[in-house]
Amino acid sequence: MTFELPMIAPLDRSLETALRDKIAYKTKPPGSLGRLESLALQMGLIQRSTAPQILHPVMLVFAGDHGIAATGVSPYPQAVTVQMVANFVAGGAAINALSGVAGMALEVINAGVAADLQHLSAVIDIPVAQGTRNFAEEPAMTRAQVEQALAAGAARVRHHAALGTTVIGFGEMGIGNTSSAACLMSVLCGVPLASCVGRGTGLDDAGLARKQAILEAALARHRQIDGSDPLAVLACFGGFEIAMMTGAFLAAAEAQMTILVDGFIATTALLVAVSLVPAVRDYCVFAHQSDEAGHRKLLEFLQAEPLLALSLRLGEGTGAALALPLLRAAAAFLNQMASFGEAGVSERAD
Amino acid sequence: MTFELPMIAPLDRSLETALRDKIAYKTKPPGSLGRLESLALQMGLIQRSTAPQILHPVMLVFAGDHGIAATGVSPYPQAVTVQMVANFVAGGAAINALSGVAGMALEVINAGVAADLQHLSAVIDIPVAQGTRNFAEEPAMTRAQVEQALAAGAARVRHHAALGTTVIGFGEMGIGNTSSAACLMSVLCGVPLASCVGRGTGLDDAGLARKQAILEAALARHRQIDGSDPLAVLACFGGFEIAMMTGAFLAAAEAQMTILVDGFIATTALLVAVSLVPAVRDYCVFAHQSDEAGHRKLLEFLQAEPLLALSLRLGEGTGAALALPLLRAAAAFLNQMASFGEAGVSERAD
Repeated sequence: MTFELPMIAPLDRSLETALRDKIAYKTKPPGSLGRLESLALQMGLIQRSTAPQILHPVMLVFAGDHGIAATGVSPYPQAVTVQMVANFVAGGAAINALSGVAGMALEVINAGVAADLQHLSAVIDIPVAQGTRNFAEEPAMTRAQVEQALAAGAARVRHHAALGTTVIGFGEMGIGNTSSAACLMSVLCGVPLASCVGRGTGLDDAGLARKQAILEAALARHRQIDGSDPLAVLACFGGFEIAMMTGAFLAAAEAQMTILVDGFIATTALLVAVSLVPAVRDYCVFAHQSDEAGHRKLLEFLQAEPLLALSLRLGEGTGAALALPLLRAAAAFLNQMASFGEAGVSERAD
Repeated sequence: MTFELPMIAPLDRSLETALRDKIAYKTKPPGSLGRLESLALQMGLIQRSTAPQILHPVMLVFAGDHGIAATGVSPYPQAVTVQMVANFVAGGAAINALSGVAGMALEVINAGVAADLQHLSAVIDIPVAQGTRNFAEEPAMTRAQVEQALAAGAARVRHHAALGTTVIGFGEMGIGNTSSAACLMSVLCGVPLASCVGRGTGLDDAGLARKQAILEAALARHRQIDGSDPLAVLACFGGFEIAMMTGAFLAAAEAQMTILVDGFIATTALLVAVSLVPAVRDYCVFAHQSDEAGHRKLLEFLQAEPLLALSLRLGEGTGAALALPLLRAAAAFLNQMASFGEAGVSERAD
């Protein structure tokens, strides 16, 4: 299987003046709705409409296991990945609660956890393999596995595009995946590993130092890698859930969806997508700045200003789900507010 | 009419350990939901329940006119206050759109605009007078008017308390009211006027300098005022909508509601309330940091860390409405998420 990069157009700006005028004539001082105004503009440009709609918003949560977990980079056992997938489909996790109140559908995808999940009938069960290999010793994935994952992630998004989804978010679960993400960021951004590594689910100082030493050694082992080939870097450091998210980002931009970008892992998957097709960036709304150490720097690298900063560091798509109400507010003011003329309200005297 | 200060208890902390334990056993790394965890704790303490509920959330928008508007402190004509009240009840303003998507009921209250509003049957029409006096020349309100406004604001909140409301927000509309708020803040916080005055609905540099000169002169004229008597300061600088909000804050804390604090004007009304009864502060969630210049300093004075910073500077309760989904998310994770034991998820290995 080979994955063909989708054609992604930069934003069509032909409606920009019409959108800016529509926003300017609303009954409020110019600019006084702050970032809601830029969100409304962006959604309008993405949907090529002066009345953008939030239809069938959906959160795709991709789960995968990581060979690197065997080195003890996380304080949690690898079994937690599968246990949390079961928790997702049973409705007991944070993303269930948060997507529920946001009015987002939730889809749980087995990208490649270290167990057979056929007994969990509510999971979209499309694993590439039962966990990646340990990139401390060898590349996490083969090139063919990367392409399979990209295609699978893209296919899930195209399914929702056909159903009319206009806003989408991606989340992830995978014990050890901040280690994958840190290495991807370090190589693709060309920054020292130290600024990419964080405490993940809650390492103490000794654990953090150990994680960093393990990952430094892994980067050294793979130092021959071609940093200008994003898919080679992705294959080397994994994981399946990250690669599926990368394919999902690409397909969502191709389908002209507004994409809610979650925390550190999801943003790393976007980094790979942007490295492949820069125009993906135009379709993204950066939902949240995570407390995971590397995320702030990664957002700066992407010149992204997140909407929220609430000290979350959970993943699962939780930050993205929290931002959906802000998109709803932006669409609502654009579509529902009266203009000065319609409401008979006086404009500025000066 | 005299207004009796309500009895407001500091937060009852007897459920604090039970709430912290409930949060700690949720299937997520400890602390990983960040500020949602502190919101859940605060709501639980306020409602004296380990399962706090968001019931009948309502936004009260108070409108009033200001004599100081005659001095040209705003670029908009005073008539805009009444026009916007008509816009509120017609459903065309920003707060209609934003409270709508947040699932908040909206109540529009005439606290004292400069016109008869009997033709607007959807307005709660309880004006103290048709606008305050010009505090550049004389006190904006009499002490009796202040007490009437406090009582009226409290009565609206008690109405909703009787209907079961557990979360409430307050917004305002009043051309010139950033001038009232700046003077209240300067006197009650004991800080120079310059750090309290901002561009309001959009003054340019010359307009800002003129506004500041007018307000400096007004403060000088009233320099004999007793800054330790919050109601005397409130009477001096107005306005009716601010005073009604102050009464509303007091009654909402008395009724053990969680209170969403909006932008600069609303926070100034809270400042008066806190100056009267400090325990009101415990019931407040600071929704948003406005772009209006004084708001950041006022939040610092109140040791408040706002949830959102989206460059809004509109008032009407818009920032408060945007924060309600975060309260919903906090209640949802606390009430719906499984514990490690319930979900069969392993805890940390260390």
